[in-house]
Amino acid sequence: MTAHDVPSGRPASIPTPLPGDPRLARLSLNQWTTRRWGVAEAVEGCARAGVPAIGLWREQVAEYGLTASAKLVRDAGLRVSSLCRGLGLTAVTPPLDENRRAIDEAAALGTDCLVLVAGGLPDQSRDLAGARSRVADALAEPEPHAGAAGVRLALEPLHPMYCADRAVISTLGQALDIAEHWPAKTVGVVVDTFHLWWDPDVLPQIARAAGRIASFQVCDFLVPLPADPLLGRGMMGDGVIDFRPLYEAVNAAGYDGDIEVEIFNAEVWAADGHDVLATMTRRYITEVL
Amino acid sequence: MTAHDVPSGRPASIPTPLPGDPRLARLSLNQWTTRRWGVAEAVEGCARAGVPAIGLWREQVAEYGLTASAKLVRDAGLRVSSLCRGLGLTAVTPPLDENRRAIDEAAALGTDCLVLVAGGLPDQSRDLAGARSRVADALAEPEPHAGAAGVRLALEPLHPMYCADRAVISTLGQALDIAEHWPAKTVGVVVDTFHLWWDPDVLPQIARAAGRIASFQVCDFLVPLPADPLLGRGMMGDGVIDFRPLYEAVNAAGYDGDIEVEIFNAEVWAADGHDVLATMTRRYITEVL
Repeated sequence: MTAHDVPSGRPASIPTPLPGDPRLARLSLNQWTTRRWGVAEAVEGCARAGVPAIGLWREQVAEYGLTASAKLVRDAGLRVSSLCRGLGLTAVTPPLDENRRAIDEAAALGTDCLVLVAGGLPDQSRDLAGARSRVADALAEPEPHAGAAGVRLALEPLHPMYCADRAVISTLGQALDIAEHWPAKTVGVVVDTFHLWWDPDVLPQIARAAGRIASFQVCDFLVPLPADPLLGRGMMGDGVIDFRPLYEAVNAAGYDGDIEVEIFNAEVWAADGHDVLATMTRRYITEVL
Repeated sequence: MTAHDVPSGRPASIPTPLPGDPRLARLSLNQWTTRRWGVAEAVEGCARAGVPAIGLWREQVAEYGLTASAKLVRDAGLRVSSLCRGLGLTAVTPPLDENRRAIDEAAALGTDCLVLVAGGLPDQSRDLAGARSRVADALAEPEPHAGAAGVRLALEPLHPMYCADRAVISTLGQALDIAEHWPAKTVGVVVDTFHLWWDPDVLPQIARAAGRIASFQVCDFLVPLPADPLLGRGMMGDGVIDFRPLYEAVNAAGYDGDIEVEIFNAEVWAADGHDVLATMTRRYITEVL
């Protein structure tokens, strides 16, 4: 990764920033980016690279232990930018207990952002309208619990190529149509560049999302997509996304929270985690800021 | 293909309809569905299967000869539902002569529908807004020529997963925003179920497209997508699309033209063309009508 050149016509590489560099003040590592690392390695990696925040995943937190994870990130002085994730909102019987536990875990970890991925069509179903209508119902039940716990449910629209199997919420506008049923304090949205960059309406919808942006996630869209389209998320600068207009729109909408780098990519996962973090800090500065 | 069962809970198979079956009155074979066939085989296949229309591709027409192709389809009593396709609308220097030739070929073949695929980002570019703005300019030049030739330029929005490399026009609404600069007689849009099924706004946009629908193309969206996402187009009934609401919306918008089956799929291409046509006629009746 470290030797990876950016394509011609793109910003030149810069030296890896040192811990304490003010340009890293809002940067967060979503721990799926360094997927082979558990919570302990990811926390140590962030501290070493000067990344002041981390987005945690429930699976890894469960492995290290909830209380131990909370203590570890607190002792390391890291913010927890989000917890991934609640699921199953399109199910005929949504996993309410599981999502309630996810809210409690977010609160215990000290983050106010629980990312929710809606889910796709139920098995054998082609009733997209029905699945979409269930998402709002599935939010109604945990919303008071989230409010009481001081956690915001952050609905994440996913790229339309995942509409059938992962998330029937495909645009930011659609996520906002649902989120706006509740106060911005309890139901927000995730703006993820990979999922939204193509949307001709994305900039006005980001403006509309003012006050509801619970998380801003960045990674690039690779062309061609790999055989598994889930792994088409690349390091910033390796794909086709022009990040700056999205970054500026999110800022203009009043979002001043963390900016998470979340990459699902076989090559990134195979690389040394510290190298990934070094590339990530450089590319964040040259491509996003 | 013929032995292919539809998933449980879906319409039962029916006997293959005979030529002259009134349910086939609007059915068209897009010849890329039987990709190994040239114009002669595809025309003969349609006649044998009772499919009264065909969508032709410029490559195959060039191979058989333009005048010979026009005579062949006319003698077989087939309608030409469309010609695929004009390209390169996002290029800094669009291929104007080539697209003018495509218009003339459409006229010579007796179709009033030339499908236009916008194209993706130019090489190394990340200027999506710039590419999108060039599409309207690239239509302005050939539009009078199309009008004089009695051919409608049919702008086709492609699924957002192809935004970077194939078509920066990703939604029907976006295609209509552009098409509406010109009379409906000269610039229309293509409604393709594969590309548009996921769009939460698709039904109102189809209604808005009244008078501008130049082509209605059907095929299914397969889950999971194959390694080459271009080949994720499946036979109706093999994927996740509920065709009837889209079919009814297109009809309600006043479209009474041909319904083309256009499938890019390695298994379909490997199968015997006559078997594909038989499956296609049955599935068209059980899944679309």
